[in-house]
Amino acid sequence: MATPEHDRGESKVGRVGLWLIGARGSVATTATTGLAAICAGLAPAVGCVTSQDEFSTIPLPRFSDLVIGGHDISDVSIAKRAEHLVSTGMLPQHLVQAIQAELEDADSRVRPGYFPGAEGVPQAEIARRLAEDIRQFRNGHGLDRVVVIDVSSTEAPIDHLPEFDDLDLLIAALEDPAQEILPPSSLSAYAAILAEAPYICFTPSPALNIPALAQLAAERGIPTAGQDGKTGQTWLRSVLAPGLAARGLRVLSWAGANLLGGGDGATLADPQAVAGKLQSKNRGLQSLTNAATTPLHIDNVPDLGETKVAWDHINVEGFLGSRLTLQTTWSAYDSMLAAPMILDLARLMGLADAAGQQGQVGQLGFFFKDPWGSDEHAFAEQSRLLLDWAQQAGARISAMTHMPDGRVSQGAAAR
Amino acid sequence: MATPEHDRGESKVGRVGLWLIGARGSVATTATTGLAAICAGLAPAVGCVTSQDEFSTIPLPRFSDLVIGGHDISDVSIAKRAEHLVSTGMLPQHLVQAIQAELEDADSRVRPGYFPGAEGVPQAEIARRLAEDIRQFRNGHGLDRVVVIDVSSTEAPIDHLPEFDDLDLLIAALEDPAQEILPPSSLSAYAAILAEAPYICFTPSPALNIPALAQLAAERGIPTAGQDGKTGQTWLRSVLAPGLAARGLRVLSWAGANLLGGGDGATLADPQAVAGKLQSKNRGLQSLTNAATTPLHIDNVPDLGETKVAWDHINVEGFLGSRLTLQTTWSAYDSMLAAPMILDLARLMGLADAAGQQGQVGQLGFFFKDPWGSDEHAFAEQSRLLLDWAQQAGARISAMTHMPDGRVSQGAAAR
Amino acid sequence: MATPEHDRGESKVGRVGLWLIGARGSVATTATTGLAAICAGLAPAVGCVTSQDEFSTIPLPRFSDLVIGGHDISDVSIAKRAEHLVSTGMLPQHLVQAIQAELEDADSRVRPGYFPGAEGVPQAEIARRLAEDIRQFRNGHGLDRVVVIDVSSTEAPIDHLPEFDDLDLLIAALEDPAQEILPPSSLSAYAAILAEAPYICFTPSPALNIPALAQLAAERGIPTAGQDGKTGQTWLRSVLAPGLAARGLRVLSWAGANLLGGGDGATLADPQAVAGKLQSKNRGLQSLTNAATTPLHIDNVPDLGETKVAWDHINVEGFLGSRLTLQTTWSAYDSMLAAPMILDLARLMGLADAAGQQGQVGQLGFFFKDPWGSDEHAFAEQSRLLLDWAQQAGARISAMTHMPDGRVSQGAAAR
Amino acid sequence: MATPEHDRGESKVGRVGLWLIGARGSVATTATTGLAAICAGLAPAVGCVTSQDEFSTIPLPRFSDLVIGGHDISDVSIAKRAEHLVSTGMLPQHLVQAIQAELEDADSRVRPGYFPGAEGVPQAEIARRLAEDIRQFRNGHGLDRVVVIDVSSTEAPIDHLPEFDDLDLLIAALEDPAQEILPPSSLSAYAAILAEAPYICFTPSPALNIPALAQLAAERGIPTAGQDGKTGQTWLRSVLAPGLAARGLRVLSWAGANLLGGGDGATLADPQAVAGKLQSKNRGLQSLTNAATTPLHIDNVPDLGETKVAWDHINVEGFLGSRLTLQTTWSAYDSMLAAPMILDLARLMGLADAAGQQGQVGQLGFFFKDPWGSDEHAFAEQSRLLLDWAQQAGARISAMTHMPDGRVSQGAAAR
Ligand SMILES: NC(=O)c1ccc[n+]([C@@H]2O[C@H](COP(=O)([O-])OP(=O)(O)OC[C@H]3O[C@@H](n4cnc5c(N)ncnc54)[C@H](O)[C@@H]3O)[C@@H](O)[C@H]2O)c1
Ligand SMILES: NC(=O)c1ccc[n+]([C@@H]2O[C@H](COP(=O)([O-])OP(=O)(O)OC[C@H]3O[C@@H](n4cnc5c(N)ncnc54)[C@H](O)[C@@H]3O)[C@@H](O)[C@H]2O)c1
Ligand SMILES: NC(=O)c1ccc[n+]([C@@H]2O[C@H](COP(=O)([O-])OP(=O)(O)OC[C@H]3O[C@@H](n4cnc5c(N)ncnc54)[C@H](O)[C@@H]3O)[C@@H](O)[C@H]2O)c1
Ligand SMILES: NC(=O)c1ccc[n+]([C@@H]2O[C@H](COP(=O)([O-])OP(=O)(O)OC[C@H]3O[C@@H](n4cnc5c(N)ncnc54)[C@H](O)[C@@H]3O)[C@@H](O)[C@H]2O)c1
Ligand code: NA
Ligand code: NA
Repeated sequence: MATPEHDRGESKVGRVGLWLIGARGSVATTATTGLAAICAGLAPAVGCVTSQDEFSTIPLPRFSDLVIGGHDISDVSIAKRAEHLVSTGMLPQHLVQAIQAELEDADSRVRPGYFPGAEGVPQAEIARRLAEDIRQFRNGHGLDRVVVIDVSSTEAPIDHLPEFDDLDLLIAALEDPAQEILPPSSLSAYAAILAEAPYICFTPSPALNIPALAQLAAERGIPTAGQDGKTGQTWLRSVLAPGLAARGLRVLSWAGANLLGGGDGATLADPQAVAGKLQSKNRGLQSLTNAATTPLHIDNVPDLGETKVAWDHINVEGFLGSRLTLQTTWSAYDSMLAAPMILDLARLMGLADAAGQQGQVGQLGFFFKDPWGSDEHAFAEQSRLLLDWAQQAGARISAMTHMPDGRVSQGAAAR
Repeated sequence: MATPEHDRGESKVGRVGLWLIGARGSVATTATTGLAAICAGLAPAVGCVTSQDEFSTIPLPRFSDLVIGGHDISDVSIAKRAEHLVSTGMLPQHLVQAIQAELEDADSRVRPGYFPGAEGVPQAEIARRLAEDIRQFRNGHGLDRVVVIDVSSTEAPIDHLPEFDDLDLLIAALEDPAQEILPPSSLSAYAAILAEAPYICFTPSPALNIPALAQLAAERGIPTAGQDGKTGQTWLRSVLAPGLAARGLRVLSWAGANLLGGGDGATLADPQAVAGKLQSKNRGLQSLTNAATTPLHIDNVPDLGETKVAWDHINVEGFLGSRLTLQTTWSAYDSMLAAPMILDLARLMGLADAAGQQGQVGQLGFFFKDPWGSDEHAFAEQSRLLLDWAQQAGARISAMTHMPDGRVSQGAAAR
Repeated sequence: MATPEHDRGESKVGRVGLWLIGARGSVATTATTGLAAICAGLAPAVGCVTSQDEFSTIPLPRFSDLVIGGHDISDVSIAKRAEHLVSTGMLPQHLVQAIQAELEDADSRVRPGYFPGAEGVPQAEIARRLAEDIRQFRNGHGLDRVVVIDVSSTEAPIDHLPEFDDLDLLIAALEDPAQEILPPSSLSAYAAILAEAPYICFTPSPALNIPALAQLAAERGIPTAGQDGKTGQTWLRSVLAPGLAARGLRVLSWAGANLLGGGDGATLADPQAVAGKLQSKNRGLQSLTNAATTPLHIDNVPDLGETKVAWDHINVEGFLGSRLTLQTTWSAYDSMLAAPMILDLARLMGLADAAGQQGQVGQLGFFFKDPWGSDEHAFAEQSRLLLDWAQQAGARISAMTHMPDGRVSQGAAAR
Repeated sequence: MATPEHDRGESKVGRVGLWLIGARGSVATTATTGLAAICAGLAPAVGCVTSQDEFSTIPLPRFSDLVIGGHDISDVSIAKRAEHLVSTGMLPQHLVQAIQAELEDADSRVRPGYFPGAEGVPQAEIARRLAEDIRQFRNGHGLDRVVVIDVSSTEAPIDHLPEFDDLDLLIAALEDPAQEILPPSSLSAYAAILAEAPYICFTPSPALNIPALAQLAAERGIPTAGQDGKTGQTWLRSVLAPGLAARGLRVLSWAGANLLGGGDGATLADPQAVAGKLQSKNRGLQSLTNAATTPLHIDNVPDLGETKVAWDHINVEGFLGSRLTLQTTWSAYDSMLAAPMILDLARLMGLADAAGQQGQVGQLGFFFKDPWGSDEHAFAEQSRLLLDWAQQAGARISAMTHMPDGRVSQGAAAR
């Protein structure tokens, strides 16, 4: 298999580091495996939005310009995890075997993440350590920019504290060794800000939903995107609901069930953790249907392994009070849906950063259940917005690179 | 229930006749019932695209500006058919009772259609009779324009004849009492052309797919639209397929089954008739997925009555050769989906005609499995094109009506 | 429609009263409507097990030997409730119209049920009143026996009290005006015992699950059966699970969802009430599959009206570790499934009583999610056991009736 | 994994050869792989009826008493085929690797089958050659009996010929080198008769449905069983339909679709071949439901590989004319369902033969869509009949083996 067209030639946006919080998890391992396989010409980039023809003229970083590193709190290496994912039937054995060296290489760039209660030092100090890991990754591998993506375990929603609304109070609390005021996802986001790295939240965790942190990110001009990858059932809903609406049909109820095993299944078996997930899953649909969506259920069904199965039952009012019902059953390896999006996000955020974009990149809402900086949930419209934005960002970069020095150094380098 | 907003005030495009070929069929009866119910304020126009907010500023004919008449070869009156549709559970009894007079009224405007082999006169003469029916309808009811919509029984595909490519040969054959060269749908379309009435084909029948007829329609400047209403499973496919494509996912197979009873079910139990239907059903999907769609099946299941049930099984290639499968089951009263579209089409074609539009109106492709004058099958894109077009047509009309005489008389009147 | 064969001739078991706790509910109203329609020859007894050919030689009470009365706490009459059930599309209007008089008649035999907290008298006194209602029904209508069936609203599970294990303590507490020790379903069951009426529990409520009450029923020789009608999804599971087992296949997980509207939907929206239901739903499946069934969900989806929709996803291990998955979607009017079973139960319990049966009739486990007096959950086996038992009971009755006086007077009369 | 209980001790029925017509096909390869894996203690016999507890006291041949050989017309070895089945994801790689030697061993016992038109000799001669292969297999491996099972490609239905009703005419035609009067499946069945081997037809091919051949088999006392393995959708129907019937519910229509890839998918893409399959699929259901089953469709969907997906839509009449609908979706590796049945059939037919059974063994109808020697299609009833029969056959053998010589030599040896 030949290197894809747009991986030829020289990148205009330089080499991009992809720093994964949760680098040894299922999504991260699949993304790492996939990137190596694509670069080795062993697999096409099916499932990557950015490998579509429409994106071929946009100066995105090439797949081969991406370098993966990250944080994790698990001791199971990426290669070991990949082996496990082979045994569940998800990852193809021959691919994993062929790119064993790349997996070990990536694993050597994984640093210990933050495990609450484990260190006995102020969170501020931990944040500085995490930020330093990101900086060393950037400098140590001659990267033009590093995109941080959180793909770690889903956390429970948190109670609001006064410190969350006041940066000074928050910083004071962070320096207090007796407090653990931020959940891990927010501490990681804070570290990304400190390292001046574009930050993306692929999970439903609290992360940047701490007003003081969000404000800090904005002040420092960090481009951000989130939240909670829209990969399966919610994605399907965001395709169907606008279609029904465009026909003047009225959704009466949208009920459903979710079965999943794997690491995420185990995490979400915890009613606390699942709460956050269900909130972001339902938000978009509520907005798309103006309807009281029936609360969705997520069941942990370990024997399904890495497969997620989702059933939806949609009851719709049509002409003269008639009913139409639509049922959908979706069955897929969850991480196989998420991983190509991680690569897309790295490329697109690399582009954003190179183009000098700051703040919430709402046009990346395409990828998220709960988009930051956008109220658009309809998928077809999100597709259009994404492409338009990417073309404009690309045009800005092309304009810059027609300037004397020819290489774009926006982002952290410029900040 | 109040008259909808956009049914207030005076129409700028005048009164529009809706001439239904197959006026006593299920779709036609449901449309006629629904129009009366909407006008009487007994039911909202749920399922009508044109009753959406986005269309509220466009000078469409109001529902109350529509008058229904048509051709049929059945002796069962619209009211009788409606009664039957109540007994199957599809039409609500109280509605049908409340608008009994309107159904009888509409039925009094139904004229005998063309039944092959029954008359022993040249087809040309029959066409002139059919056209005269349309003209009398227009004049007798003071209509500004008449839109002809074919909702009659599906016909089998036909073999191509030399006459179909040469208008003179065709006209000669039509005058020959010994020949029945055109199938009924095409003869009806020819009659519409003779009556200078905008023509819409909601069926998969041959209709205007006779090059010589299509050319004649074009020469006479008749606005046309078709073909084969995209109401259910095919519509769903045209929503899902572009969504999958926009994520870089690759459809491997799209297989399915269709169960239906009712009049259409009985017609399509005939392998000849079903052939045409299946062709138009598959065409769009082929184009949307670049895939060898598995041939679809249509089964006549009489005990389902007017309900159509459709199952689809979609096998998709994702990241690293993984598979995702999506199944959909759709269950709805078929005519309840089609009828509001018939009302939409009458209003939109009324608009087109008033705005002076001629030839194939590709933007009405939104409504069809096999759109004339357009290659776009993706539903979200079709929605956008439809709205843009309607707004422009509206703007043209508003511009005209700001002229001294204030009322638009494009269309047949002007031709 | 002719009276069914087995409704001809004279009954050997006399006239049977059917006393429904919850006589104005959806299940009861449907049963009452159906009985009247069957007796009037307006509908066949489709859905009744006892109208199968295999039962035609068994001396069951005829449909026309059944007389309905009952308790309820609602003021909405059976006729009004039936009207509502017509408006939801469940009951056919013409049937309800045709048997209006019978509905009013039945409603005239409904007495006020027990509403906790409303009366300020000891529960013992209420129980005596309820029992007296049953006795008067029996005597007032010349009934040979009365079968009490609880089809009232599902109650929440209750905490165990010391009085539940000791009849004397319980009776003392019942006489105490300051206590309400029994939930309504148990008080009703107690009343049935006092009235010496065979008792059936069609709900998952506490009912006879109070050891002291169960003991009393046993001592008095009351035939009983229960519990929680197995009408839909659980029934389907009890058909499929034994089939899979008989092939040596191994169920790994059985997950599912339940959507329902209607009165039962509203009741089960209460997490307390649903708890009891879910327990009895899962019990049988656990026993049939030896598997940790994923907890089932019940969602209240009001727009579904009286329809229940249930989805199951079954993951099965086959040969050499392979997987097979089976999904089922069930959609039905819940009360239309339950009502014929109520008539069956009345006939079969009438037979049991006439045959002198006492205690738990385990062979009626066919009808229940959580069978009393039986551990058999496999439906095919339950069918066989039911038929065998009915034939034997019938034979016993035939033997008795060959005796001089010829009419069977077992049951309350003999006790 | 330990050898299963009933594989310990010494067999009372001796070693049984399993001669597979189509020995290199998907079903045969899976059965061969599975047998080796079970014997090596690498996999439990999940999916085998005979490994259920109820069968543990019956003196069946042990798995380790089975030896596989057969005919095929393909040059692709069993090991190669197994490798292919690994690549499709069906067979587990580690199992196939571990039992490589056994696959090669089995393949060394495969002899060339009959390929119509290839040999230019009378069919009688070919039949003698095929029979000789079976005899040599029996003698060469010291087998007490050989069970022949046809698992070769499905053949088209054939026209009836006068020779089929007259054994003398048929034998004359077989000796005529200019004629090929028998289809391959029937020639193979004839060879089994000549070799005095019990014969089982797992396909829907003509096989023994030639009256003259059936008569010959009967005269020679050959035990036979068939026809067309009931592994998936038809099996599911035979579980559900009796359940619905036992509740007095009335099936109105049973419609469905079948998607499959693999070798069988390709074969059945041929409308001729599929005709036979569809006939046997529908026969049982017709009998179970008394209903006009909607003709089932089988689609070849190559990208599904070895997976078969089947959808059923069942429309049922319930109480008072109400409707209930049930949908099922079944997804499984087809050969994984068939292979354990092949092993079951070998063991059970070995038992039958040892017990001296002759003619059609109707109790093996459990395994077939179109059972020979039985009209019972209800699966639960078939399960009971199978177990009862096996226990009786076992008892007969136990009685014999308590005789002086202690080892059973019924079957071919005795004939
Ligand atoms: N389709 C999808 O897979 C999908 C879609 C949307 C969102 N997500 C989200 O992506 C996340 C990852 O999913 P997954 O299936 O890979 O889960 P996983 O459990 O396999 O992986 C999570 C990883 O995060 C690590 N981790 C936990 N806490 C950490 C910390 N404080 N710092 C660093 N690493 C930490 C864990 O050790 C583990 O390796 C989840 O939050 C999930 O909700 C996934
Ligand atoms: N969702 C939908 O209902 C849908 C979608 C797409 C297309 N369609 C098409 O709409 C058409 C109508 O469907 P229906 O369900 O109303 O069918 P129907 O059978 O109920 O009605 C067809 C009517 O056409 C009449 N007719 C037949 N030949 C005629 C002729 N030569 N001239 C005039 N009238 C004639 C018949 O008498 C009948 O009244 C069909 O062709 C169908 O394929 C319907
Ligand atoms: N398929 C089925 O419908 C099905 C299956 C199994 C069990 N059930 C059970 O049957 C019961 C009835 O279901 P439904 O759909 O008819 O519910 P419903 O809510 O329509 O009817 C319940 C009736 O009980 C009455 N009631 C409540 N408390 C009472 C009391 N203390 N004494 C007398 N009457 C009282 C209510 O007023 C109401 O009329 C429920 O418990 C349900 O769980 C139904
Ligand atoms: N669940 C199931 O798999 C199932 C269920 C019921 C019936 N069956 C039947 O089992 C049969 C085998 O299915 P499969 O999936 O293994 O098919 P397959 O195509 O993989 O295998 C068929 C084998 O038969 C061989 N063959 C063809 N003609 C032959 C001949 N004349 N003599 C000897 N060998 C010959 C072929 O070379 C091939 O190896 C089919 O007829 C199928 O309909 C299978
Ligand atoms: Na937002
Ligand atoms: Na029990």
